[in-house]
Amino acid sequence: MKIGFIGLGNMGNPMVRNLLKHSHTVRVFDVVPELVNKLTELGCEAATSAGKCAHGADVVITMLPSSPHVRRVYQDAHGVLASVSPGALLIDSSTIDPHTARDVAMDALGKRLAMVDAPVSGGTGGAEAGTLTFMVGGSADNFARAKPILEAMGKNIVHCGDAGNGQVAKICNNMMLAVEMIATAEGMALATKLGMDPQVFAAIANTSSGRCWSSDTYNPYPGVIPTAPASRGYSGGFGTDLMLKDLTLVTEAAKAAKQPVMLAAAAQQLYQMHSTMGNGALDFSSIIKLYIKQ
Amino acid sequence: MKIGFIGLGNMGNPMVRNLLKHSHTVRVFDVVPELVNKLTELGCEAATSAGKCAHGADVVITMLPSSPHVRRVYQDAHGVLASVSPGALLIDSSTIDPHTARDVAMDALGKRLAMVDAPVSGGTGGAEAGTLTFMVGGSADNFARAKPILEAMGKNIVHCGDAGNGQVAKICNNMMLAVEMIATAEGMALATKLGMDPQVFAAIANTSSGRCWSSDTYNPYPGVIPTAPASRGYSGGFGTDLMLKDLTLVTEAAKAAKQPVMLAAAAQQLYQMHSTMGNGALDFSSIIKLYIKQ
Amino acid sequence: MKIGFIGLGNMGNPMVRNLLKHSHTVRVFDVVPELVNKLTELGCEAATSAGKCAHGADVVITMLPSSPHVRRVYQDAHGVLASVSPGALLIDSSTIDPHTARDVAMDALGKRLAMVDAPVSGGTGGAEAGTLTFMVGGSADNFARAKPILEAMGKNIVHCGDAGNGQVAKICNNMMLAVEMIATAEGMALATKLGMDPQVFAAIANTSSGRCWSSDTYNPYPGVIPTAPASRGYSGGFGTDLMLKDLTLVTEAAKAAKQPVMLAAAAQQLYQMHSTMGNGALDFSSIIKLYIKQ
Amino acid sequence: MKIGFIGLGNMGNPMVRNLLKHSHTVRVFDVVPELVNKLTELGCEAATSAGKCAHGADVVITMLPSSPHVRRVYQDAHGVLASVSPGALLIDSSTIDPHTARDVAMDALGKRLAMVDAPVSGGTGGAEAGTLTFMVGGSADNFARAKPILEAMGKNIVHCGDAGNGQVAKICNNMMLAVEMIATAEGMALATKLGMDPQVFAAIANTSSGRCWSSDTYNPYPGVIPTAPASRGYSGGFGTDLMLKDLTLVTEAAKAAKQPVMLAAAAQQLYQMHSTMGNGALDFSSIIKLYIKQ
Repeated sequence: MKIGFIGLGNMGNPMVRNLLKHSHTVRVFDVVPELVNKLTELGCEAATSAGKCAHGADVVITMLPSSPHVRRVYQDAHGVLASVSPGALLIDSSTIDPHTARDVAMDALGKRLAMVDAPVSGGTGGAEAGTLTFMVGGSADNFARAKPILEAMGKNIVHCGDAGNGQVAKICNNMMLAVEMIATAEGMALATKLGMDPQVFAAIANTSSGRCWSSDTYNPYPGVIPTAPASRGYSGGFGTDLMLKDLTLVTEAAKAAKQPVMLAAAAQQLYQMHSTMGNGALDFSSIIKLYIKQ
Repeated sequence: MKIGFIGLGNMGNPMVRNLLKHSHTVRVFDVVPELVNKLTELGCEAATSAGKCAHGADVVITMLPSSPHVRRVYQDAHGVLASVSPGALLIDSSTIDPHTARDVAMDALGKRLAMVDAPVSGGTGGAEAGTLTFMVGGSADNFARAKPILEAMGKNIVHCGDAGNGQVAKICNNMMLAVEMIATAEGMALATKLGMDPQVFAAIANTSSGRCWSSDTYNPYPGVIPTAPASRGYSGGFGTDLMLKDLTLVTEAAKAAKQPVMLAAAAQQLYQMHSTMGNGALDFSSIIKLYIKQ
Repeated sequence: MKIGFIGLGNMGNPMVRNLLKHSHTVRVFDVVPELVNKLTELGCEAATSAGKCAHGADVVITMLPSSPHVRRVYQDAHGVLASVSPGALLIDSSTIDPHTARDVAMDALGKRLAMVDAPVSGGTGGAEAGTLTFMVGGSADNFARAKPILEAMGKNIVHCGDAGNGQVAKICNNMMLAVEMIATAEGMALATKLGMDPQVFAAIANTSSGRCWSSDTYNPYPGVIPTAPASRGYSGGFGTDLMLKDLTLVTEAAKAAKQPVMLAAAAQQLYQMHSTMGNGALDFSSIIKLYIKQ
Repeated sequence: MKIGFIGLGNMGNPMVRNLLKHSHTVRVFDVVPELVNKLTELGCEAATSAGKCAHGADVVITMLPSSPHVRRVYQDAHGVLASVSPGALLIDSSTIDPHTARDVAMDALGKRLAMVDAPVSGGTGGAEAGTLTFMVGGSADNFARAKPILEAMGKNIVHCGDAGNGQVAKICNNMMLAVEMIATAEGMALATKLGMDPQVFAAIANTSSGRCWSSDTYNPYPGVIPTAPASRGYSGGFGTDLMLKDLTLVTEAAKAAKQPVMLAAAAQQLYQMHSTMGNGALDFSSIIKLYIKQ
């Protein structure tokens, strides 16, 4: 299987390495030459443009930072859609707004190309371990074609419905996560302020109706869960500014859909305030700093 | 064991019946005579005041609607604290503010009486089935004395620390729950508005970082979880106005402690708005009606 | 006219001095003896309890910190209501919740005493200059009796309707103020962040539909209004913690009335967060610090 | 003076008519032919494209619905910037985001064309009466050139600073307005719920620190101000959906600038919820319907 891979950053690089481990032939491109060089040393072929990377490939995978990048790479005059061979499968793993994802997929369909959106969760750790979750939007046929390739990079490959639904699933899940993390931060901060031991309160909430992933797996209170970022100074994990990027995507998608999301909009503001105070690089669970004296 | 039980409403009545099943002798009191009569028919002795109900009992249990009721029943001139025998154990299962709980417990301590606060979760269903969770605040000794009695009425008896901590655990857990339910409602409403199937989105969130009790056990979107109130028109369950009562307690406790709880305060307002629109008697998961066209 | 005055703090002291200037005879009481002594030096008679201060007076004025103080001073067994002569006029200038104000006024009515609630605006500056605004709740007759006395201490004496309405007017006005100040802070912070001169933007808003007292008289951006606290490091003025007290009163009154106040509840939280960060003693317009880098 | 005018909707049409009254020669263009015809009947020359409308004009004025329209009209291959004569003055009166305004102005500068952004307030009423306020961003020279032309259509021509600042002033003012209107709605709703007469409360707030344009000129409570939309069923005025458009612009500009605007974001959500409930066409002061029973 000849794969073209475009976008070789912190996520793209380990994803390519996992493809190589599964004996795929991978041609790579990035606008930063050093990122290309790192992978040619491991046996990848280098391309000098997105279009050339796509040319002749059976599958093209993209991992890009934002919607404008995706539009450019796919829709430019010499971009992927103009360069790829008929019958190729296109997989965009970037996290972008569903509207752009659907627009590009529609363009691909117009050229009789198979495309799925397949954003991931699991972060750089999951990318390296090959344990990412892929949320895939596209037809059942395209999902069936994409699945074995994605399995080289991930553990959990979920079909979310038609084109764009991978993005919808990703950003709506993260919207819930963002609010639940603040709910947990407020609960932990208030319970301890009112005199409870944080471990005791967390144990009770985690076996009660307040239970959520943010409380039982990723608790923001230092020391409650030894493996969580809160127990190592909020280093590693999922950065506040990355969460803020997803919240911005999802609140704008909600505005475009004329759908109220009261608490998510408030959460977006709180992470913004937290980032403005200089905490953008810390794990997003550090939002609890807004609630407890340091 | 001679038990005095004060407060015989929807919760108190089945709790007394479970005590009877465990062969306890129960003397009962309520300001509403009919509620007393229902239980004398089953073998309880009737008292004509709270003080007389407490007089001579080994254990006094109270299940009352609010803080002022608790103050009156315990602290009035002829109330429980003035009437009970030295050495008796006092258990208050009302949900009230932690400040009042601690104040009454301190009064009891001053009279060398053992007292715990032990609010419950599990609702009228749990009260009838004898499967309530009791969150208990008080010394280790008092907890040890209360535990076997509470086991006649509940399944899960948790020690939360010193006096008042039962209340703290209860209201802080419910505060998290209230926010997480809205997070779930916003996520379900937006994902479906953007084109996803509600079952598919719920399945993804429930195996991802957005997972919470409100999404995987009590999902507010009709039809996602057949046994949840959402799948039967939001009847039964935990009413919006009861959630609003707990949110009012917890946001006032936060104000008194000078502790910010931004999203909980916003949630309190949204449940208030929902109740004002006439939905106070529906299960609190009906808050999703603010987000989806009917 | 023989006046009894109870509560001799930062507000009460200058109010009494203005009464003396208008040749009233004033008997005073406070639980802090030094506060009493300061005024006996100026010719007031000292009382040793609230009840004794009220005994034989034509008019009793109270200026107390909170609802429980008002209840105690008026309703205790030897308090004002039990001690004052029939026909006396009672004026409570404390800022408290309307429910307590109405309850005490009802008690007074039951004893055939005339009572009005008359909270003030204008701060310690207005108290000293005798330019306070009094918002008066009570019958037209009682208002007519109170007016000439209040004119010794204030400039603007407004009849707000029946008992309690003085409090309603005061806290609802301050609720609007609290939100409008944040609206102004957000507008000033964003306009300058996007490149505008603060003076130019303020001038435009102040002649447009964004105009409000917080923008045209008390602008929170340093330097825009030379006489505002913002132009002297947020010293003087109306402290954040005082605003927080009023917001707590009004959001609790709203909860009791089952009335949503979404933005006021959010504002209460923001002032709380600002106070928690150590800014409680600064003028409330310092809330802009949440929005601009220092 | 030969003027090209592009965008002939509810605002553009009366603006052109006022230019005609001041003896200007006006060539017009709109994508909807009927809108062009209405004005050729009054003596305007018709153009068949934006570029042709601009060709040979001394001044080009545009009044368009959104940023993408502005980009297209100015920056397309045959658009205004490509077609207009050197030395012409370009005035964009659309309300758009400041970033796009600055980008287009920069393009114009690159072609040595003079450009200002000049969004308006005053609505269709002001456009017809020639009493609009123009908030102008651009160099002092360009402002001086634009002013006499704008005076044919408006009464108040304000220089806000460099390019884009007209947009900043407009959207930041409207952001303050949006929040202050809700502050007023919450204050009026709570004061009346707690027993005050709406007229009496409004009169007090309007002479106190709660005073704002929304309370003293455009009060949302029916009957308080006879000329306000609230006193005629919220017809006419400034529609909820138009306010929502401006709030969406301003909250997105704030996100791009990484500037928190907590209450504005909450207000955006409340107007969104209000619109979703079917009130988008009503004046924005109808937001009070969220707070009072109908």
